[in-house]
Amino acid sequence: MDHLFSYNQLFDFVYAVFARIGCSETDATTAAHTLLSADLRGIDSHGIARLSGYVRLWEVGRINPQPDLKLVHETPSTAVVDGDGGLGLVAAPFAMQTAIEKAAQAGTGWVSVQHSNHFGIAAAHAMMALPHDMIGIAMTNASPLVAPTYSLERLLGTNPICVAVPAGEEPPFVADMATTTAANGKLEILQRTNKQAPAGWIQDKKGNSSLNPYELKDGGALLPLGSDREHGSHKGYALGAIVDIFSAVLSGANYGPWVPPFVSFLPLAPDMPGKGIGHFFGAMRIDAFRPAADFKQHMDQWIRRFRQARPVEGQPRVLIPGDPERETETERKKSGIPLLPPVVEDLKQVAEKFSLPF
Amino acid sequence: MDHLFSYNQLFDFVYAVFARIGCSETDATTAAHTLLSADLRGIDSHGIARLSGYVRLWEVGRINPQPDLKLVHETPSTAVVDGDGGLGLVAAPFAMQTAIEKAAQAGTGWVSVQHSNHFGIAAAHAMMALPHDMIGIAMTNASPLVAPTYSLERLLGTNPICVAVPAGEEPPFVADMATTTAANGKLEILQRTNKQAPAGWIQDKKGNSSLNPYELKDGGALLPLGSDREHGSHKGYALGAIVDIFSAVLSGANYGPWVPPFVSFLPLAPDMPGKGIGHFFGAMRIDAFRPAADFKQHMDQWIRRFRQARPVEGQPRVLIPGDPERETETERKKSGIPLLPPVVEDLKQVAEKFSLPF
Repeated sequence: MDHLFSYNQLFDFVYAVFARIGCSETDATTAAHTLLSADLRGIDSHGIARLSGYVRLWEVGRINPQPDLKLVHETPSTAVVDGDGGLGLVAAPFAMQTAIEKAAQAGTGWVSVQHSNHFGIAAAHAMMALPHDMIGIAMTNASPLVAPTYSLERLLGTNPICVAVPAGEEPPFVADMATTTAANGKLEILQRTNKQAPAGWIQDKKGNSSLNPYELKDGGALLPLGSDREHGSHKGYALGAIVDIFSAVLSGANYGPWVPPFVSFLPLAPDMPGKGIGHFFGAMRIDAFRPAADFKQHMDQWIRRFRQARPVEGQPRVLIPGDPERETETERKKSGIPLLPPVVEDLKQVAEKFSLPF
Repeated sequence: MDHLFSYNQLFDFVYAVFARIGCSETDATTAAHTLLSADLRGIDSHGIARLSGYVRLWEVGRINPQPDLKLVHETPSTAVVDGDGGLGLVAAPFAMQTAIEKAAQAGTGWVSVQHSNHFGIAAAHAMMALPHDMIGIAMTNASPLVAPTYSLERLLGTNPICVAVPAGEEPPFVADMATTTAANGKLEILQRTNKQAPAGWIQDKKGNSSLNPYELKDGGALLPLGSDREHGSHKGYALGAIVDIFSAVLSGANYGPWVPPFVSFLPLAPDMPGKGIGHFFGAMRIDAFRPAADFKQHMDQWIRRFRQARPVEGQPRVLIPGDPERETETERKKSGIPLLPPVVEDLKQVAEKFSLPF
């Protein structure tokens, strides 16, 4: 049985935890807001379920709770942000805000971030552009769990990309996706429900297809979008690589197999070439291309035409990217956020650690 | 048996054909260079094999051989180009050059193109950024052949994306990919060799998986990268949609099912919302983020680490995006470009039409 919690209840708790590890009021607010946007949108693997993970990273000294966020380089349309080892949940909104301000002046803004940590869901950041009539883009590299096509070694993270596009009367188009066939969170769900994975999600340590959701613990790997060469896995590999390069080679963060792990018990790689993990953000002002009203009218037509496409038998309709998450958010704002019993247990331990009520 | 032709032999012929349809010397040179870059890189479906298709589009009045290319809107980092109904093979290099000039000034440049036609391979344009120590990006929408996840209708093209990244001592990273599981050219190869398609490339008119490479003639569709929902086709659909939006909704071109077909015998859609087909280009100056020398050193390390990954048994090595095309280009520059007999026949008919030697 899931337990239902109100957003405010969870917000107050997450805020208090970030405050206890030493974040400023502003940063604790930003971090709680960013983290919980995952729970609101139904991306349960990236939300409050990870709070104890962030705390453990702080305990081993891998998160600086009082980072001095700085622009270390800039041009009219670009910047590099130094996250100073702080929470990605704080560095990412700072960097995205910088991209938006650049776009207001120069038409577009592009910001690469070094020395950061995990930033929650990409959509939380990309969607910041929408109220400004801008297209928002967010991506990040992550701990190496993915084997490129033909590789036995795990060299890439699930490296997600989000693109958020404003519309007029229709809700926005928001595509937020790992560049793998299945995100790691999907494996966690299979483990909890004691099910096998579909073929094409995972390979074992010899590079053979595997259905075992625990395979990564035994040297296996997630597969890039496309699953195998015949079905285009070289494209998923290329997409993950592009995210890695934009986020980390462009900023001076760590890339490929050197990206620091999210779990605190794994050691950092020796000879890391950069600082922390990397992100990349973009904002494009619609009216830097054409009048926003014209664009939105066409975007509405685009959305309606796709939504009204004749569906395959047995499917109610063709979805627009962002539809499922928006519907979940509406529902959860009304009825509350369900948490699985192991997540509640985990949060109780966090509460105890900081003598907080939960 | 394939016939081998030297690059110069083919260049002179293609140049002469574009000149005969009325292109200026400069435009015919650009168009021939762009078209043949596909043959050099081994993307045979997008090169000289399409020359007769361009001629037929000109014959039915769908290509303006003397376009007046114009910037219709601009900011420091953006522009919209009106292709004036001309060859995409000419409008695209013009737009990419504009992006590069914007990037030289503002750090990055982003150019969306309306009222264009097919532009050959995306890599031809994205790679223009490389000698300037810039990352190049190119994408285009295309005739609707692809069904979004759960759709019976074909609403997207194979909508390719290319990202080209300079390195130091290593050759550049060049990922150029259709956002479908298999590009349409792959079906043409199956048809010629009388083979079935692998499962996951095509659906029939009822949305069932099909192995028939002629299925598109009977109302079938290509599938987005990922093939089916369980393997992430909603991500391939989202990528194709992003290309469509950046290329056409942002520029004022046609999008989705309204994109004009490449084949001249298919009618244009009624009530087209925009002009021609659309492209999108980007250029990012490396030193708008960090010193180019530092970036290139890390990019070399990135490339070497991935190339040296332990391969799965039976595979010689892990490839870097762009490796196969670069190797083909080296080989073909030396030994010549092979053309299939039906392509040679087709070109002989083009030669006859214009009283040109071939």
